[in-house]
Parts: sequence; structure tokens; C-alpha cells
Amino acid sequence: MTAAGRPGRLIGVGVGPGDPELLTLKALRLIRQTQVIAWPAPDEGDSFARGVVARFLDEGKTEIAIRVPMRADRRPAQAVYDEAATRIAAHLAAGDDVVVLCEGDPFFFGSFMYLHERLAGRFAVEVVPGVTSLVAVAAATGRPLAARNDALAVIPAPLPDERIAGLLDGADAAAIVKLGRHLPRIARLLGGLGLDKQAVYAERVTLAHQRVLPLAEAGNGDAPYFSMILVYKGAEPWIARLPVGGGAS
Amino acid sequence: MTAAGRPGRLIGVGVGPGDPELLTLKALRLIRQTQVIAWPAPDEGDSFARGVVARFLDEGKTEIAIRVPMRADRRPAQAVYDEAATRIAAHLAAGDDVVVLCEGDPFFFGSFMYLHERLAGRFAVEVVPGVTSLVAVAAATGRPLAARNDALAVIPAPLPDERIAGLLDGADAAAIVKLGRHLPRIARLLGGLGLDKQAVYAERVTLAHQRVLPLAEAGNGDAPYFSMILVYKGAEPWIARLPVGGGAS
Repeated sequence: MTAAGRPGRLIGVGVGPGDPELLTLKALRLIRQTQVIAWPAPDEGDSFARGVVARFLDEGKTEIAIRVPMRADRRPAQAVYDEAATRIAAHLAAGDDVVVLCEGDPFFFGSFMYLHERLAGRFAVEVVPGVTSLVAVAAATGRPLAARNDALAVIPAPLPDERIAGLLDGADAAAIVKLGRHLPRIARLLGGLGLDKQAVYAERVTLAHQRVLPLAEAGNGDAPYFSMILVYKGAEPWIARLPVGGGAS
Repeated sequence: MTAAGRPGRLIGVGVGPGDPELLTLKALRLIRQTQVIAWPAPDEGDSFARGVVARFLDEGKTEIAIRVPMRADRRPAQAVYDEAATRIAAHLAAGDDVVVLCEGDPFFFGSFMYLHERLAGRFAVEVVPGVTSLVAVAAATGRPLAARNDALAVIPAPLPDERIAGLLDGADAAAIVKLGRHLPRIARLLGGLGLDKQAVYAERVTLAHQRVLPLAEAGNGDAPYFSMILVYKGAEPWIARLPVGGGAS
């Protein structure tokens, strides 16, 4: 809380990929010292971001749940962000800082941007960077993600096949993010490009049930929200020796 | 230290972009509980990575300096890594874990790969991911690095102009890393592509003397080792309002 009369700060805090130990010292300090904590969650069920820091949340805090419907039609989600921004703005205007918990990093494909674009013009904003799933997956595979003069592409799976193929063509290594229901299509695309044996599939990295597999063994279903494919050109030999031992240590 | 007879683990620990508070809890725990700590440094002067965690290093530790000549001829550096790997292997073989401090993240353009490729076949390796300069710079600019279905390219500045231009053409946003003496050439290239007003220059982010500026104001000299250009297509209006307030908070 800040002095009366002065508005609070909106603080986007990256909580990392899942292992609570991958929280930064700064994130922990700000979570502990801030009274109002907001977090995203699906419309039913638990918040991943809140789960990461649950052990550090004492009972006295004011929590704001931002329950976002995960549907192709984004209009209901926009209404949810409107409403959350209004609630958060009331705390900020009253002089209280508000921490928004963000999976991974707030500005790396995160939903924090939806609150940021609604509030940054009116209130001071601070962003605490976090460990991204990108480097967490690389750590789990046991191989460098990018080295020397490698060009790395980070490619959202919902993009059209032709665009993804062009981005893969230009890069030495690539991370395909936001897989979800696009996993079977991406697997087919990589097969057609001759890159399927140079691709690693990863989900729930840094958590107890992490899976890090050659893409060919990932199956044909939808991928969970926190999943990723890494494509390492020329990496076929070591990918064939996956899976690596999993889980937090 | 582990039980006698069992080799130690090589532990690559990302220490983040510079602010000691951006260390993860896991990095801090492993640094505190490990007796042998190795760190890279220039051939003369202080180690950036060691400086980040200096406050957490008690006096009883064994420290291994890896002093790497920063020259275009990489052969002297390779000899330094050979020698460091030999010293580290002796500790591992004796049953001691060895933490290698890594700027940013160990597998994201880091020098840890040079030790990893020399030691991973013989010893167990763990990598603790860290906050990359990539997301730290985005946090400092106050704008999302990638959002929705943006394709992001991470481009090493030493690549040839034509390749960089192709990668920029395919992406919605880009980070140009490893600037060093390439900064004037990259600035000219971005100007020729009409992207100079959509580019932010950043150095020493998260540290007291951080600079986050429109590229046009960055000057024409060499860039320090930890500097980066972010290109955000269509972002001219807010880039013109930089610099943002700087420094750790």
C-alpha cells in the first residue's frame, strides 16, 4: 500500500514455467509485500499462476480472480478483461499496488497485455521479467536452444502453414508455441518439411509430470496449454535418445 | 558434495540479466549449497555473472575463474575452455558438484555450451533456466515483446546483412543480440529497411545505469556486450516517447 492520495502501481510479475523454485527473488518480494493479488484462471478450475506461488500467499490478501473463457470467440474474454481492469483500477486509484501473476513472463505471449493495454495509460506499471517456458524447455532437453550465431524463431502454432514453413526455413532453431488443438496439424507440417525427426515435444516442464519426447511419440491429440515443440535442425541423433529423465529436482 | 565414489553434477545456473533480485530461488539454493563455483570473465577485469551473485558467495567456496579472451580468433578461447573443463572434471570426478554461473540463461546464447559439450558425455548435467535479457529488455521498454500470434525472431548481429533482412522480413518482432562492434552496421541496415524508427536500443537493463532509447539516439560506437535492439513493427509512436525511466527498483 502507498501513501493516501497517490495511486498504486500495476505490477506484472512473471512466475516462471511452473516450478515454484523458478520464481525470482524480486517476484517473491513483491508478492509478499503487496496486499492485492490478481491472477488469471480458466472459467472453471484452478489458476496455474496462483498455484505456482500458493505457498507464498498468506491469508490476509485480497485476491482478484480473472476467469477467462478459453474459446475461439474472444469477445467473452475481452469482457472479462474489461471487468477485471475496472476492479484493479479501483484498488490502484485508492492507492494500493496490485500484483498480477503471470505464467512465464508477462510480456512473452502472456495475457498480461490485455490488462496492460487497459490500464497503462492511467497508472504506473512495473513488469518483473520471469523465466520463460522457452528456456525451461531447453533446460529440460539438456541441449542449447541457441548458440553462437544461430537464428531462433518463436512461432505461434495458430499461424497458417505457409507462414510457419517460411519462418522455419529461415531459422536454425525454432520454438512453436500455443500448440493446443494445432498439435496434429503442426506435426503433419513438420513431417512434410522433413523436420519431424529434428523436433522435440515438451509439456509441463519443470513440474512433476513433465514430458520431453521426440515429436513422433507425442501422440495425435490436443496439446495442453503449456506445451511446445522445439525444432533443432541437424539434431536428429540426440532427439532419438529422448525422453530424458523428468521432473523437478 | 555428494557421497564418496559417486561423481558430482555439473550444474549450469542462469543468474539472469544483472539485477541480483532476478535470481531464481533455485539458483540461490544451488549456489549456497554448492562448494565449487565456476564463472566466466574477460581476460582482464571482473566477472559479470559473479558480480550478480557476489552477495551470496561465502568465503569458504572454491572458485574457478574461466577467463576468456574476447577476440575474433576463437582458438585461444577454446584452449581456455579445455583447461577449465579439465579443472571442473577433477572436482566432479572427486564427487563434488560444480555450479557454473551463466549470464542470463545457460542455453540461450550462453558460453555454458562450451563446457557442456566438453563434459556432458562424462558427467550428469543439470541446467537451471534463468531470466533472459530478451524479456528483461521487454520489461524495461514497458511493451509486450510478443503477443497474440506474433512471430518473434532472435537474430545474432554477426550474421550477414542479407540473412538478417530476410529474418526481419518474416517476423512481427525481432531481437538483435550480440551487437558489439556490429551496432553501426545493424543501425544502417535497419535504416535501409525503413525499420530504424521502430527499433529500440537497450543496454545494461535491470542495472543502475540501464539505457533504453530509440535506436536513432544510441550513437555510432560499439555496443557493450549486454546490449540488444528490439524491432517492433508498427511501434513508431511509443518508441519516439522513449527513454523510459531507468534502473532497478
